[in-house]
Amino acid sequence: MKRLGIVGGGQLGRMLALAAAPLGVRCRVLEPGHEPSAAVAAEVVPLGYDDLAGLEKLAQDVDVVTFEFENVPADSVAWLGAHVPVYPSAAALATAQDRADEKALFSRLGIPIPPMRLVSSEADLHVAVIEIGSPAVLKTRRLGYDGKGQVVLHSPDDAAGAWAAIGAAPAILEAFVAFDRELSIVSVRGRDGAMAFYPITENHHRDGILRMSLAPAPGWTIELQRQAEALARKVLETLQYVGVLAIELFQIGDSLMANEMAPRVHNSGHWTQDGAVTSQFENHVRAVLGWPLGDTAARGACAMINLIGSAPSHADALRLNGTHLHLYDKAPRPGRKLGHINVCAADEAERQDLIARIEALIHPTPTEES
Amino acid sequence: MKRLGIVGGGQLGRMLALAAAPLGVRCRVLEPGHEPSAAVAAEVVPLGYDDLAGLEKLAQDVDVVTFEFENVPADSVAWLGAHVPVYPSAAALATAQDRADEKALFSRLGIPIPPMRLVSSEADLHVAVIEIGSPAVLKTRRLGYDGKGQVVLHSPDDAAGAWAAIGAAPAILEAFVAFDRELSIVSVRGRDGAMAFYPITENHHRDGILRMSLAPAPGWTIELQRQAEALARKVLETLQYVGVLAIELFQIGDSLMANEMAPRVHNSGHWTQDGAVTSQFENHVRAVLGWPLGDTAARGACAMINLIGSAPSHADALRLNGTHLHLYDKAPRPGRKLGHINVCAADEAERQDLIARIEALIHPTPTEES
Repeated sequence: MKRLGIVGGGQLGRMLALAAAPLGVRCRVLEPGHEPSAAVAAEVVPLGYDDLAGLEKLAQDVDVVTFEFENVPADSVAWLGAHVPVYPSAAALATAQDRADEKALFSRLGIPIPPMRLVSSEADLHVAVIEIGSPAVLKTRRLGYDGKGQVVLHSPDDAAGAWAAIGAAPAILEAFVAFDRELSIVSVRGRDGAMAFYPITENHHRDGILRMSLAPAPGWTIELQRQAEALARKVLETLQYVGVLAIELFQIGDSLMANEMAPRVHNSGHWTQDGAVTSQFENHVRAVLGWPLGDTAARGACAMINLIGSAPSHADALRLNGTHLHLYDKAPRPGRKLGHINVCAADEAERQDLIARIEALIHPTPTEES
Repeated sequence: MKRLGIVGGGQLGRMLALAAAPLGVRCRVLEPGHEPSAAVAAEVVPLGYDDLAGLEKLAQDVDVVTFEFENVPADSVAWLGAHVPVYPSAAALATAQDRADEKALFSRLGIPIPPMRLVSSEADLHVAVIEIGSPAVLKTRRLGYDGKGQVVLHSPDDAAGAWAAIGAAPAILEAFVAFDRELSIVSVRGRDGAMAFYPITENHHRDGILRMSLAPAPGWTIELQRQAEALARKVLETLQYVGVLAIELFQIGDSLMANEMAPRVHNSGHWTQDGAVTSQFENHVRAVLGWPLGDTAARGACAMINLIGSAPSHADALRLNGTHLHLYDKAPRPGRKLGHINVCAADEAERQDLIARIEALIHPTPTEES
């Protein structure tokens, strides 16, 4: 039996642990939160991410340590790296923790990104919004996810308010790109350097939170796939990356632009649990343990719909053939991801039909009163 | 969150718990064995199946109790049934616990079975072997599995020895049927009476242990499927059964004969984890919790190969595209089921090719010395 340590015990840790079990891998998570989602299939060390006793317990007798989120304290990563193999590497994590470093990497590799400026002060921001134009998005360099730490500037007059809104933290100002759609590519690289890429996925956000992914993306072409794989490959190889890496992309015409990357399993890859030959979770486990990667091909026209704030009843959700329910054992709360439903359909028409049925469960139309 | 209690914490309990988790169901197993396989995804009550304190802990705050094996002490089933909903029912379990009762049920329902006699003494056996003819198989009425509690009589002269070999226990003597092949049908019935049937599976045993299953069975026809479903339906409805039920069958020409049934998820249904839209494990959980059943269709030409006594390395096993590894976290021991590998192929030719590759891993051909 192998043992895998995971920093973080939320739903990503949970799904990693559930995917690891059939391979004979037991997981342990470091998670200070109450009733962690991962507890169903992992031993829990209920201490903080920066707690030395917690790190020691996490690292004890495990073969490898990995992460379910990127914002792990650098000191913790360094301590872990000195005691046990850690994948992805501290360097890869550090790059993804800082939007400015991430953008610099993309630029260095010739990967197109939206026009942007570094912003370290309100004065910087006033200059940047003139240079970049408005609307533009102000994003903190660190600790942003699900739309948090982001403010839209509709005009240069918004600069002072926006700077205050993000807490006067080091940031970047990014041009508002008139993209046609948002895509992502979920990729994986093994310890031997082998790489695999899932079909590109079309993502739909609302209020900064991913609501739905479609994979393969509607109108999928081999050219678009190759373009996405080429840029992901550059990042994987440059960082000597090990594990799953997701890169969010903007499509403009036939071209792709990188938005940001996540050095971990990613919400836009959840469809792979039922829709790919090997899930992103299993492939991450395989990669960090040094095992051969699994087939990333799609098994149909797939989709993933997040259950946010509330979830349909089992009776309703499980009645839909061709869909798969994934709950996280989390208490309902507005805006909270409680689970997702995967769709694996024979073709795009069936996919759209199933999505419509799921949407009707999530947002029921009020019945007319008689 | 729902809670499910399972009597037994071996690999079947493990795979039930792993399938239950995504549905938001936490499992607790009653299992006195050391380091139970199910521990990876279930809370363990480490007490005996007939321990009242254990039964109390198992039943506490769970919504339903089910079983991973049929030989649960009747008193335990009765106690559980008085305190919490139990599926399948005590009556269904009792029938499956006794080969004579099981055969009587099949006969009453008009389901063909091999010629057989009840045997309660050595004298009975001497008479039975003359009436049935030899070779014939002597099987204890209770507690038989994986070929245990069975002795073949090659001639009437073997009677005394065979009677001693099975411990002079109540038994049946069954004619040795010259079947063409062994099949099984895995079926499921919900609390609302809905039923679903997986494609019939061809099974290969050696030394009384299942080695390989192929599903859909080679040469699958709708007529054979309907014949199998018709007899399974009779059993499900008569017993008002809830959960997964497997019936082992003999095929002779175009006809089917029932061998025995298992009132639980079954080794010949493990291929459904990767090869069916909904696995037998998920469908059992759905059934006992009163939820709609999932689609039982096969996703390709599938197979399951048991890993018995030893398992290939991860490096070897995970290299084969189109296959899925399932380990049970059990220490190697001759004859012990340590895991299985599922195959999900596009067609029968690819299935055969993958099976050959897996067989080569399990039984490597010695390389010639130079």
